[in-house]
Amino acid sequence: MDDLEEGLIRRKAVAQLAGVSEATVSRVLNGVGPVKEETRKRVMEAAKQLNYVPSALAQQFARQKSGNLGVILPLLPKVNVFSTYYFSEILSGIGHTAKQSGYDLLMLFREPGEPREYAHLFRTQKIDACIILGAQNIPSDYDALKELQREGHPFCLINQQYEGAPFNTVDADHRMGSYDATVHLMKQGCQRIWFLNGPSAFSNSLDRLEGYCQALETAGEPFDPNRVLVGNYSRKSGYESADIMAELIRTGQADAVIAANDRMAIGLLQGLKERGLIAGEDYALVGCDDSDGARLTDPPLTSIAVPFYEAGCEATSRMLEALTEPVLTAPFTAKLPVRLVVRASSQV
Amino acid sequence: MDDLEEGLIRRKAVAQLAGVSEATVSRVLNGVGPVKEETRKRVMEAAKQLNYVPSALAQQFARQKSGNLGVILPLLPKVNVFSTYYFSEILSGIGHTAKQSGYDLLMLFREPGEPREYAHLFRTQKIDACIILGAQNIPSDYDALKELQREGHPFCLINQQYEGAPFNTVDADHRMGSYDATVHLMKQGCQRIWFLNGPSAFSNSLDRLEGYCQALETAGEPFDPNRVLVGNYSRKSGYESADIMAELIRTGQADAVIAANDRMAIGLLQGLKERGLIAGEDYALVGCDDSDGARLTDPPLTSIAVPFYEAGCEATSRMLEALTEPVLTAPFTAKLPVRLVVRASSQV
Repeated sequence: MDDLEEGLIRRKAVAQLAGVSEATVSRVLNGVGPVKEETRKRVMEAAKQLNYVPSALAQQFARQKSGNLGVILPLLPKVNVFSTYYFSEILSGIGHTAKQSGYDLLMLFREPGEPREYAHLFRTQKIDACIILGAQNIPSDYDALKELQREGHPFCLINQQYEGAPFNTVDADHRMGSYDATVHLMKQGCQRIWFLNGPSAFSNSLDRLEGYCQALETAGEPFDPNRVLVGNYSRKSGYESADIMAELIRTGQADAVIAANDRMAIGLLQGLKERGLIAGEDYALVGCDDSDGARLTDPPLTSIAVPFYEAGCEATSRMLEALTEPVLTAPFTAKLPVRLVVRASSQV
Repeated sequence: MDDLEEGLIRRKAVAQLAGVSEATVSRVLNGVGPVKEETRKRVMEAAKQLNYVPSALAQQFARQKSGNLGVILPLLPKVNVFSTYYFSEILSGIGHTAKQSGYDLLMLFREPGEPREYAHLFRTQKIDACIILGAQNIPSDYDALKELQREGHPFCLINQQYEGAPFNTVDADHRMGSYDATVHLMKQGCQRIWFLNGPSAFSNSLDRLEGYCQALETAGEPFDPNRVLVGNYSRKSGYESADIMAELIRTGQADAVIAANDRMAIGLLQGLKERGLIAGEDYALVGCDDSDGARLTDPPLTSIAVPFYEAGCEATSRMLEALTEPVLTAPFTAKLPVRLVVRASSQV
């Protein structure tokens, strides 16, 4: 006798003792479907007498729900994903919100090059809904998302959009962030503002670059694509761009840099400091994220505060709503506001 | 017809088509028990023809395994648990190791005052093993751990030990860390070394204090309990101790401080800087953890590097081993080595 059969036999005994059908026992113990209060009590009493406690797995199997909210996130060699401000803030928001609704978080790590079998996680009831972090505009990611959408599974992206593809997304107004940063630098008298961007496979990188371009063009300055450098959002890539930037600053070709995240900005600040160039004196520097590190550098780093924690909360609330009241609606895009926090690094 | 019944009926059809018993179908599809290769092929073929894919839940139900490694961690109001260096490093180690073995992480947040129903997570097959972070020496935590042990569930603590209670634990040699820090400060000529500790409900706090006492006593200096302050491991609590410390430094009653983590050390460093006292000039300062922040402060912070990432890996490997080869052995205690990283803050 295996566990499926044993479950059925025990359920039958409860039904007989309570004088109801087996289907009613299932409805009561799984908390699904309408049942009279008096019947419910009788079934609970019988189950208690027979010491019949369906396991969470059996309950989930019957309900076809796991009680888990999936969080898909990238796992990179040599990078501690939880240790980056970006992921840790989003995950804290997701965790707090899920906990309030009694949902547990199932962390699903995705390695580079690994097949994206997201829909499989739903088909096999590992998760009831999911939030996807670090998705990129590459075919493997896009196809996996299209499949989720085609099969009607509730999912939400954070900080990633696909042109022409309406997926549920919680994003921040990154365009406005670098627009404000560029205007701020121009007000400080900067005339040769460079942009150290992240990879263009992330829609955030494109948004940030767009805000920079728009601010320049609004001020009547033509956008010069030669003033854009590209790193990979790591501190090391910012540090490595210091060689080029030092030369540009010394020769008067650059007087300010906006970096698309704080990690790159901090790497650049340190690299330039080692070459005798001080942020806020020899050049102006702005980062993005307003991470803890921005307050610790010398000088403190001007940065664009992005509500990552709130983005995690928002995405989670939306997914849990979709589970309790599934309605067919158009995909949503929430865009949270950002805020420039001015510190010494940009005040030349 | 509910899902349990449907599962049985579909399994019966596969058995008939393959010409084997239903029990054999279960064994093949759930990958448990001995089956001839030829039989296995026939069952897989029949299941494929009938498009019968048992769900992960059904498989788990049959195997009585969830495929999930539980991680129990505290959820504190106003603290983003993932954003603290301590938790984020440990979780990265757990995540990388679990991923390699195909296990998913189920994050279980525990709020202060909430009942610790850890054993329930095993009884209901939500998890197969678990790692417990942030446990304290308080009756509710202790009782929950005793229950887990009594029922024989595989679990492991990280960085917490209970006197006289042999639970599986992965810890670091915190005692040696503050011993080395104290010796280092004495070599720098410091004579009035204070200790800013965390709450004594964490065994780490006691270990760190012990190393400090031992180093003093070895040097023939009596331990003075009046030179111990207690914060709560937050940056704010370090910052708030700056008032007292400033007075003590100015009046010559203190010339050095060891803080039991970097967050408190950084808060203290900033608070004292605002009062005109510079670490590495007016007093010597050592933190614990060697977090990212230690490299960013001005001056950079001397700190005790603790292998938190490795502790996460070690605990996870041990738990996954216990699942694949369950053997009755005595509880283990792994103690990982720490290392003093000297920077400018302690060189007076």
